[in-house]
This record gives sequence, C-alpha cells and structure tokens, in this order.
Amino acid sequence: MSLRSHTLGAVTESLLGQRISLCGWVQRRRDHGGVIFIDLRDREGLVQVVCDPDRAEMFAAAEGLRNEFCVQIEGVVRARPAGTENAQLASGKVEVLCHALQVLNPSAALPFQLDDENLSETTRLTHRVLDLRRPQMQHNLKLRYRVSMAVRKYLDAQGFIDIETPMLTKSTPEGARDYLVPSRVNAGQFFALPQSPQLFKQMLMVSGFDRYYQITKCFRDEDLRADRQPEFTQIDCETSFLGEDEIRPLFETMIRRVFKEVLDVQLADPFPVMPYSEAMARFGSDKPDLRVKLEFTELTDVMKDVDFKVFAGAADLEDGRVAALRVPGGGEMSRSEIDAYTEFVKIYGAKGLAWIKVNDAAKGRDGLQSPIVKNLHDAAIAAILARSGAQNGDLLFFGADRAKVVNAALGALRVKIGHSDFARARGLFEDAWKPLWVVDFPMFEFDDDAQRWVACHHPFTAPKDEHVEYLATDPGRCLAKAYDMVLNGWEIGGGSVRIHRAEMQSKVFSALNIGPDEARAKFGFLLDALQYGAPPHGGIAFGLDRIVTMMTGAQSIRDVIAFPKTQRAQCLLTNAPSEVDEKQLRELHIRLRQAQPAA
Amino acid sequence: MSLRSHTLGAVTESLLGQRISLCGWVQRRRDHGGVIFIDLRDREGLVQVVCDPDRAEMFAAAEGLRNEFCVQIEGVVRARPAGTENAQLASGKVEVLCHALQVLNPSAALPFQLDDENLSETTRLTHRVLDLRRPQMQHNLKLRYRVSMAVRKYLDAQGFIDIETPMLTKSTPEGARDYLVPSRVNAGQFFALPQSPQLFKQMLMVSGFDRYYQITKCFRDEDLRADRQPEFTQIDCETSFLGEDEIRPLFETMIRRVFKEVLDVQLADPFPVMPYSEAMARFGSDKPDLRVKLEFTELTDVMKDVDFKVFAGAADLEDGRVAALRVPGGGEMSRSEIDAYTEFVKIYGAKGLAWIKVNDAAKGRDGLQSPIVKNLHDAAIAAILARSGAQNGDLLFFGADRAKVVNAALGALRVKIGHSDFARARGLFEDAWKPLWVVDFPMFEFDDDAQRWVACHHPFTAPKDEHVEYLATDPGRCLAKAYDMVLNGWEIGGGSVRIHRAEMQSKVFSALNIGPDEARAKFGFLLDALQYGAPPHGGIAFGLDRIVTMMTGAQSIRDVIAFPKTQRAQCLLTNAPSEVDEKQLRELHIRLRQAQPAA
Repeated sequence: MSLRSHTLGAVTESLLGQRISLCGWVQRRRDHGGVIFIDLRDREGLVQVVCDPDRAEMFAAAEGLRNEFCVQIEGVVRARPAGTENAQLASGKVEVLCHALQVLNPSAALPFQLDDENLSETTRLTHRVLDLRRPQMQHNLKLRYRVSMAVRKYLDAQGFIDIETPMLTKSTPEGARDYLVPSRVNAGQFFALPQSPQLFKQMLMVSGFDRYYQITKCFRDEDLRADRQPEFTQIDCETSFLGEDEIRPLFETMIRRVFKEVLDVQLADPFPVMPYSEAMARFGSDKPDLRVKLEFTELTDVMKDVDFKVFAGAADLEDGRVAALRVPGGGEMSRSEIDAYTEFVKIYGAKGLAWIKVNDAAKGRDGLQSPIVKNLHDAAIAAILARSGAQNGDLLFFGADRAKVVNAALGALRVKIGHSDFARARGLFEDAWKPLWVVDFPMFEFDDDAQRWVACHHPFTAPKDEHVEYLATDPGRCLAKAYDMVLNGWEIGGGSVRIHRAEMQSKVFSALNIGPDEARAKFGFLLDALQYGAPPHGGIAFGLDRIVTMMTGAQSIRDVIAFPKTQRAQCLLTNAPSEVDEKQLRELHIRLRQAQPAA
Repeated sequence: MSLRSHTLGAVTESLLGQRISLCGWVQRRRDHGGVIFIDLRDREGLVQVVCDPDRAEMFAAAEGLRNEFCVQIEGVVRARPAGTENAQLASGKVEVLCHALQVLNPSAALPFQLDDENLSETTRLTHRVLDLRRPQMQHNLKLRYRVSMAVRKYLDAQGFIDIETPMLTKSTPEGARDYLVPSRVNAGQFFALPQSPQLFKQMLMVSGFDRYYQITKCFRDEDLRADRQPEFTQIDCETSFLGEDEIRPLFETMIRRVFKEVLDVQLADPFPVMPYSEAMARFGSDKPDLRVKLEFTELTDVMKDVDFKVFAGAADLEDGRVAALRVPGGGEMSRSEIDAYTEFVKIYGAKGLAWIKVNDAAKGRDGLQSPIVKNLHDAAIAAILARSGAQNGDLLFFGADRAKVVNAALGALRVKIGHSDFARARGLFEDAWKPLWVVDFPMFEFDDDAQRWVACHHPFTAPKDEHVEYLATDPGRCLAKAYDMVLNGWEIGGGSVRIHRAEMQSKVFSALNIGPDEARAKFGFLLDALQYGAPPHGGIAFGLDRIVTMMTGAQSIRDVIAFPKTQRAQCLLTNAPSEVDEKQLRELHIRLRQAQPAA
C-alpha cells in the first residue's frame, strides 16, 4: 500500500469526491467550532484538511498534532463551503475531509518560525535543514533546477555533450588561489581542485568532441565577498569551428530560452553589443547596468588648460580622465545628499566629487551653481553643457583622476544614484531585464605592482586577427576575441575564442613574459595538444549561482545554494572544516605548522 | 561566413548536388590515378573528399595534407561511382568533390597510429588528447553522455530534482579514507571531499524536497584496483514516502529505460529479486553473475561426521560451510586444468580444492573418481549426488572452510569456469543481460579485527520492522531494508530505506557501539534533523562509470572517463599531483613531513 496517492499540488477540483491519501507537514493547525483544520504542506503545495470529531480515533490523533509533524492522511476531496475558498492556492476551492490520520514522525518545537523573515544568517545556516523548508528556499532551489534543465535541453539540442573533467587536477599558481589536496600515494605532492575546466575543455576540442558542456563545481580559495563562495557552479561550454560572431548568438539564445521557459520573460533579441571601450567611456564599467538611464560625458580634452588644478592635472595625465555624470532633475538634491555621495565615491579612490547645478542653461556660466565654475574657462563650460545636454534643473557630478579611478568612482556613483528612490521616481531607472554583450576587450592590462602585462581574460584568449602585430610591439593596443554577457550590471557569462595554434600561443606567452621553459612546465600538455591539428575553438562559462540569484531576486547567492559556506568559509550545519586525526595527516605526509614555529 | 554548413554525419544522398562546407581531420589521404582522396573525420562521421588536379591551388593544398591536419573544405556532393559505395558509412553512397581547401591547423606526426590497438596504457594516458580521438573513445564518451541524459530525462519526469551538495565537506574517518583539503581561513582545520552525498541527501528529504537526484563526483582515497578511480561518478537518488517495494520498481524502470534508449536492449521486466541469503547459498556471492549456469550444492549438514577431516572440521565450525559446485560435462577436464583451478582458489583463501568426477552415477561410490571419496560415508555420497543432481560426465568441486572463505573461493571459481571457453561451448554461459535485485541484507557483520559489529551498508540504513527487537539482543539476525542492483555479476547500484526517527537511529548507533557523545560529534546534524518531522525516505546510488563500462564493453572504467588517473593515482597528461610552492603550504598552515624526520 502506498502512503500517498497524490502530491499536494495535484489536489484540485478534478479530484472532487475521490478518496485520496496525502503526506506532508503540518504547516498550521486551527481548532474552530469543534473542528480541527490542518494546513498540510509538501514541496508542491498546501491543502486544507478537515478533521471532524465524529471519527474519534482520528480526531484524537489530530488533537496531538503540532507544527512540522510529518503526517499521512486519508480522506475524501470535497468543495469548500461557499465563501471560504482561497484563490491564492491551487487547492483553494477544495478541502479534504479526513478519515484516517497517521503521524509518520513527530517534530520537536522548531528553533524559529518558518515564516520569520528576520532570521540571522547564522541561525539560518546552522539550522539549514529547517531553513530549506521555507517556501522561498524551496522556490529558489526548484527554480535553480529548472534553469539547469533548460540549459541542458538547449545545449543537447545544439549537439553539445556533457563530458566530466577531473576534480583532482594540477595546481597552477596564477589567477586565484588553489584549494590543494595532499596526495597519499605520491608523497609531498598535491592535487588542486579546478578553478575552471578551461584547459580540459580546450583539450576536448583538440580531441574532436566538437561541442562540450558541463555544469560543474569550480573552486577558488579567495577571501569571500557577498557574492562569492569557495565552491561555485559554472555552466561551462566550448565549441569548435565557430567564430566570435557565431558563438555569441548561440549562447544568447540559450539565456533567452532559459528566461522564457523559467520566468516567461522575453529578453531582447538580439542582445545589444557594445565594445569595451564604449562601455568604459559611457558608463565607466565593463558590466554596465543598462537599467540606469545615466551616462558619462567625456571632458578630458577640454580640461587640460583650465585653472581648476584637479581637472587640469587629471586631464594632463597619460592615463587621466575628466568626465561628468549628468543627473536629470538632480538640481533638487540637497547639499547633504551631495555630501553623502562625496563620501561614497571615496570608497572607490576618488579624492572628491565636484558638481554643478544647472539653474538656467541659457545663461551659461551665470546660470550655474557650483564651487568650481569660477575656475573653468568659457570653452570648458560650453563643452560641459553642450556635450552633456544638461537641462535646467539638472545636476552634473565630475570625476577627475587616473581613468581607472574616475571609471570606478563615477561608475559606482552612476549605479548608486540609478538605484535610488530619486532615480526611480524620475524614470531614470527602468525596472526591466537589460542584457548586453560587451566585446573587444583588451588582451592585456599593465600590472603596476608586477611591472608587466597580464592577461585580462586568460592567456589562452585569441587576439583579434588585425591586432596580432601589436603582441610584440604594443600589447596595450591589442584587442581580444573576448566577450562578456552582462545582465543588469552583473557579468553572468564570459568567454573568448581561444588560441588554436601553438606559435600564436607562444607569442602570447612572450607578451606575458612567460618564457618557453615556464610555459612548458605549466602548460606543456596544452602546447603539445595544439601541435596536432587543434581546431579553431572558443567558448563561454556562465555563473549559475549568479544567474539564479538574479532570477529569484535573492539577496545573496547563499540563498540559491542548498548548503553554502559562510563568509569565513565554514559550513555551520556540519561544522566543516574541522580538525582531523594525526593519523590522517601522517598518511598524507604533512604536519600542521605551529602557530609559533620554533626557530 | 560559417566555416561549416554540415557535420560529417549529415552528408548523405539527401545533399546530392549541393555545395557544402565541411570541417574535420584528415583520417587518411590516398593518391590514386592522379586524384587525391581524403577521408575526412569529425565526431559524427567520415566523408570521402575528392580532389581533382584541375583546381590547381586546391590540389596543391591537398598534396600538402598529412594525417590529422585539421581542414575546412568546400565542395559539391555527388554520388560515388557505381561499385565504390561503402555500406559501412552513413555517407557511403556519396563523396564530395572539393572546390576549395583550407588548412585550419597542420599536425605534427602523431606519436602513434590512432588505429593501433596495442598501445600501452601509459602511452594512451600520456597522450590522452590524441587517444580520445580514437573512434572507440569517442563512442564511449558519447554513450556515457546519452546514459546520463536518459537518466536525467527519466528522473525529471518522475519529479526528481537535481540539487547540488557540497564538495568541501566534513571529514568522518570511517569507511574509506577521505581526501582532505586544508583550510586557509581556519588554520589547522580540513575539509574532506565527499565519499558520497549520503547525509546531505537525507537532509534534503527532511527539508521536504521529496525527490532528489544528482549525478556527482565522489572521492575515496583507496589503493586502486582495476575498476576504481580516486574520483568516480554516482547517480545519487533519494525519495520520500516510499517503501522498499516502491523504490525498487522506480529505479529498475530507470535502468530499463536507459538500456532501451541507449542500447535498444530490453531488460527483464520485472527484475528478479533474490534474498541475500539465497544468493550466498546458491552462488556464494551477493552479486551473482546469472549468466553463469552453475550453482552451489549445500552439504554442511551431511559432512559433520565424515572421516575426511577437512570437510568434517569445516562442517563443525560455527561459521563453517561445506558446499559443492557442479560443473556439467566437467569430467572432461584434465588434471592440469583442475590443478590450475586449485591454484586459483588459493587467491581467495581456500587451502585446497577437493573434486569428484562422476563417471557413472548409478553405481554410487564405485562410479566416482576422486581422491576423497574413500573418506566419505555412503550417506554423504548419496546426498552429494542427489542434491547436486550430478549426471555422468560431471565434475564436482568442493569448498570446505569458514563460510566466508568457501563463498569467496567457490564463488570466484564459479565465475572463472563460467566465463571460460569450456563453459561457453557447453551452454553454461548465456551471453545476455541478467539484472537482479539482491535484498534482505544483514544489518551488521562482525568485524573480527575490531571485535565489534559494523554496518554492512551504512549506519543510516533502516532495519526490517520485524527485526528491530534484534538490534539489542542479536544484531547478527537483524536484516536491513537494503537492496543492491546487480547486473552480470557487477553491483551497479545499492541503496536502502533510511532510518527516519531519531530514537531508531540511536538504537542502531548503540548496536554499532557508537556512544551518544561520538554520535553527536560525528552526526549531530543528522540527529538534529531527525527531530523535526523527518519523513520516511530511502534511495539508491548507481555507479555511472561502471554502468557505462558494461554498456560499452570497455576493458576498464578508465576507458569511459575522459581524463582518468592511473593506478598510482596520477594524471599522466597534466602531471598531477605535483609539488607546490612553499608559499602555498605556508598559507595552508601545513608543512611537508620529512622522509626521515629528525628525532
């Protein structure tokens, strides 16, 4: 005999008059007019069960029920009395008259109420098993599953096959810090957990698998920020024989399908495409949030000879920038609001935040209110007004510093203002899904500390065909066949066409100051593989945790992961990590360092 | 412009006359009558490309081709001349007349021929990227993908949802040895890689997710045998509210679907079900290969008082057993064959291998040829002949020892003979798929070394309802709600109904001599979870590597894993594990032990 004939999601009018058996948890018990009402809950829904006192044995059992008891009931589906229907529930037109009731497992009193919205993260993660019973968490993980299945369905139809790559792999100490796994059999040696399957997927292309994907765990031992976890999940894809312009549509279609299938949201078709340089110029960010209707105005060229030293100095720097952010209607902002934003941009390294209120643009200089106007010459003021298109009542914020600082500070300010109630009230924020491809990334950026060029994406990214010559002569000018998918200010995917010829790979290693010996030691297997007719190939990796976080509107990726770690990289549920036996360490040929090592 | 209009699997008569573009690898180049023929290969197939000398530029390029060059061609599909069709190929009726040819990437001479069947494993794993180009490896990994997709499709339709459980988890030093991961943030502490998601999936049931699955990596740091890898892949499933008799059909249907969909093989419906005790009695194994038509004959009871001390002594042991294995037609075996089997059973601890040839059963004792008959009394001989049903020309092998040894030795002998040419020639081996459920496993077995009861399955397995009383009084009699799925002598899946009540879990821990403090330290989170209305639940885990190995007929699970480790747990392709920087160790608060530690 089955305990259950239907899940609770299936209990609707279609079952009227039928005798059914149900299993679930007591969400709530109400005693009303001598009758006991039970809200029974399972993964699929909520059903009202009615216990009449005529069935004494059953009623006695019902009287003993407490919240979160796990029960099985048998009963008959009947219509709810007129006026007591609940339109919120799939089962809201019916109830089940209980004939028999069995407690499958009682429950101790919960340490918190499941509907408490103010639980601390510590409480939630310590009692994760109960926290996961909350409807929002059930929703999040079910949605996560639907996303990954929609991805699989799409990729399968496109000829991608899921191939598992190793979890115990080789440590290559660049990029992020590796998680290491000591080897017992090979004393003194270590595996590393993969930061991504990048090289394995490239090798699968060389092996001729043509199209690969994997939804797989990746690991980075970094200090954790709000949206980072030691282990995270990547939708990792690679294809052969396609160029950049073919790879992008293939994967934006995937994301469009996922949003349509899971959220019934129609994303733009096609996604807009924007060069990196344009994104930085207009938004100061390579992942601009296009919901925010605010843009930068470029002013570097007209500020070189103004009296205002902050602007002139920045404009004169080789890597300097002066830009304005126009805030329509911002003239209404109070001095204290402006002061708060001034404090805010300091987080990003800005030394101050110059501003101009446009009271009457037709009057030029005289229509402006600002501490800095007196030190700007007429041409500069004219350019500010003309280029920004400022209207009466607008506010202009200025950034002047090294371009990196201006972009970071003014870019963050743009998002900060753009998400504020002020912007929402004035239509400067569009509550929508705004996808975007950012393309034409630089190959390299100069690492000031190391005084050398480092790869912006990774060292296996192909340069633009027409920029190959710059590899040796002017690496900073060399653009890459790299692309990021951006959604509402989050990078949700990133990829590139890869280098498929050994000689090109060597050139890029040279540009990165990785000599032949070092290249061979670290990436010999890749260089070898490229020797044997490696096909043109490229791919992309999406952050599943992040995509699902956005789709569910969760506050943190921890809310879309069943058993996440805290920001101290601990699992509060199982108490991992933990100390281990000395015997285990001995077998692994390691010992603990003393907090105070002997001299 | 796309490099490719069709994959090679799509090039058939349906494209006759069309101009197409193809990409792939040069499998072979033949020059014949002034024309160059290229066998072009990709993941999907092989196509014959014909290069005529009239197109001089293209022809010159074709002349430069060597094996494994990666090329793109454009050409027109035409029928092959009559008599030159190749029925082996999907494209065998057509060829492509080449108009343009582009070398996408040349190839150095391969270190071996792709069709070389005699490559050493070292060569294959060192050059894994090329080894994976071989058709058999392409087939194996594609089939593996089809199996996992068929599994996902089935489980999805049954309401199972894929929920990811952590890879960085807590070390519980029992069962197999853990792979450990030192924590940087929490000095002196370690994560363990999961041996299975067992406790997490149980907790997901307590959370109310109802049906869970995951195709996930598991890790065991054990010395490797032929069919083991440090990391292996499990199809891990758990469901709530179902009993043993409902769980088994659910998952045998899954396996039946997979075999039908992927191999077009119809497995038995339903699978036969056999108690553990019967499997041991008849086959000496809890994973009997039912293709082998040989069975044990139980003789312990009649051997207690025979003169043959080996038999009598074993029959008198509390845990002794005397059994025969009847080999129909085995009378033809030579003395040297019998001697070889005698050596064979020693591997399994048997001290010898008694035998009887049945020359004329009707004559009783006088019709038997054997060194031991003279020491057996008439009743014993009559029982041997009657119970085994031995016919003239048969051979009987005997095992007499502790039951464990008899089962291991005679069970292995059964399989050894059953797979031999001898057995195949005599119809004692049925070349078929023979699935089986083995059920009613014991809860516990006695560990002679530790002098205590240990769990046969794992300590979360529920006892049979009617055996709960034995937990305290006679653990050895207590059977479990555990089941293994066996196919052709391999355990491909195993599972159980789990304990869902805290008090039952405590009783089982007691039987295992795990005190309350130890239980809380190791499994506190499970005991806590069971307090809060945990539902009845159970599940199963399948070994994906093993299933695919069987389905492909591969020699080793290494042939169904893209990048496997050697038996020394090394990746020969990437040279993992490897030494790491001292800085990395310092960050992880560990140091290497010296080979010869100072006193």
